[in-house]
Amino acid sequence: MSLLVMGTVALDDIETSKQARKNLLGGSGAHCAMSASLFTQVHLVGIVGEDFPKRHIALLRSKGVDLSSVEISQGRTFHWSGAYDAKDWNTAVTKQTELGVLEGYAPRITEAQKRLPYVFLANNTPDLQKAVLDQVRSPKLVGLDSMNLWITHMRKPLLGLLKRVDLFVANDREAQMLTGEQNLFSAARALRKMGPRLIVVKKGEHGVIFFCDEFCFSFPAFPVMRVLDPTGAGDTFAGGLMGYLAKTGRLTRANLKRACLYATVCASFNVEGFGPSRTAILSVKDVEARLKEFLVFIQPE
Amino acid sequence: MSLLVMGTVALDDIETSKQARKNLLGGSGAHCAMSASLFTQVHLVGIVGEDFPKRHIALLRSKGVDLSSVEISQGRTFHWSGAYDAKDWNTAVTKQTELGVLEGYAPRITEAQKRLPYVFLANNTPDLQKAVLDQVRSPKLVGLDSMNLWITHMRKPLLGLLKRVDLFVANDREAQMLTGEQNLFSAARALRKMGPRLIVVKKGEHGVIFFCDEFCFSFPAFPVMRVLDPTGAGDTFAGGLMGYLAKTGRLTRANLKRACLYATVCASFNVEGFGPSRTAILSVKDVEARLKEFLVFIQPE
Repeated sequence: MSLLVMGTVALDDIETSKQARKNLLGGSGAHCAMSASLFTQVHLVGIVGEDFPKRHIALLRSKGVDLSSVEISQGRTFHWSGAYDAKDWNTAVTKQTELGVLEGYAPRITEAQKRLPYVFLANNTPDLQKAVLDQVRSPKLVGLDSMNLWITHMRKPLLGLLKRVDLFVANDREAQMLTGEQNLFSAARALRKMGPRLIVVKKGEHGVIFFCDEFCFSFPAFPVMRVLDPTGAGDTFAGGLMGYLAKTGRLTRANLKRACLYATVCASFNVEGFGPSRTAILSVKDVEARLKEFLVFIQPE
Repeated sequence: MSLLVMGTVALDDIETSKQARKNLLGGSGAHCAMSASLFTQVHLVGIVGEDFPKRHIALLRSKGVDLSSVEISQGRTFHWSGAYDAKDWNTAVTKQTELGVLEGYAPRITEAQKRLPYVFLANNTPDLQKAVLDQVRSPKLVGLDSMNLWITHMRKPLLGLLKRVDLFVANDREAQMLTGEQNLFSAARALRKMGPRLIVVKKGEHGVIFFCDEFCFSFPAFPVMRVLDPTGAGDTFAGGLMGYLAKTGRLTRANLKRACLYATVCASFNVEGFGPSRTAILSVKDVEARLKEFLVFIQPE
């Protein structure tokens, strides 16, 4: 079934110790949509400025992503500049953030999109996430992602949102910040009490933890030997997860495990290229081949 | 087959944010022997002082550990005092170290022990590890553990030892320190080039990575909700690993995976009690029951 993805669509300038690239397609919504589109039809909700390159639009379209709710507005696209130290790929140092057209944005989705069964609110301000959530009608599964900035500065609206979603995807530090619990399983349990019945804690190179009332599980990450740029890895993970769940529709332990495995594999490709360059040329066949390799890597025998 | 374990036998004073305990049975050799004894006959090599409590001797004996090469010497037992902050169980803050009888120790093993097929040199000075390794005759598998102190201050003798062992067990930080590689798979590959053909990188709460020329694999840690004292977790892991390999004798991928799973389960029990108190009352049945639970937790379905 189809998936509605709401998030930022951005232009990213990224610097690592080895390379620097400008005006890459970025943003939580874009990375998430690219990855989810491997599994299902994706409808993206977001806003860009008049400076947004046509090649980025063409790339998203080539993945079958429906852009009817991506507004092209007067002004400049949301722009993020960041840098990484190769010694800690988990921490991006933000050099500059220009909100551009994101300021004053009031998301609107089409009548058909209001009835979509799967919804993912990728990282964005809780207010914008709420604005989209308020428009959808009885979805089957709503997922949410957030970030340290909103946990610190918009805690109350974020807690309000958590009560209304089924699945929460957080990275380890966010889970700890939001709950005050250092042990990630204690943190996951505390997040569960905040509302969402399905908790996914991403641990970057250390893999993923899944927690719900009935069971929990964990997988390591796929061993990537050469990380080029980790930007969007978490969004790519979330896209794979939600895309696979939207495609298959089952919330059994086996299927949730499968969804986390696909998500892990998608994210492992993402970090091998700058921006979404590796994900852009990714095929389902590539994903299946790496999943097979990954299963040998993690499977007890 | 039987396993020779060489390491420290210590008295530990341990402080956490919640409790403090004195004169616990500690040391790399003791923790390792306790855990390995679940799987096979263990011969421990080490030294203690006249102050070493009889109850600790009795505990080791009750596990079937052969103590004929544990010397009781005039003077005081090696004594370690450390503290943990509950926010970072991975880092012990050493408050005091008294070498005691460890100074001037020249390990000697029995004629029968010289012919033992499995040998584990638990964390100790590279010189003492070498002194034992020089005495064993054509063992089938030799494993080695070390620590940051020796990596920094006795790098050369440690590198010499690495050329002579089959299996090296390091934690993530040690692997990074020794190789200068941040990516743990790159670090494992670099360790392989230093000599040992089997590399095990322990990542604490994030599980374990195994690396050799033919394959690599990774498992998450068992989710322990209430850590009381992580002292000796790494030694307990190593003991489970070597004990299982000594028992089964096969170095196939399936068996090495199995060994790492048993090791993980043993370590998960260790952190649930102060010193070796939880491991002390551990039965093979407990280990098998938790392994079953762990397999559901990590198994793709």
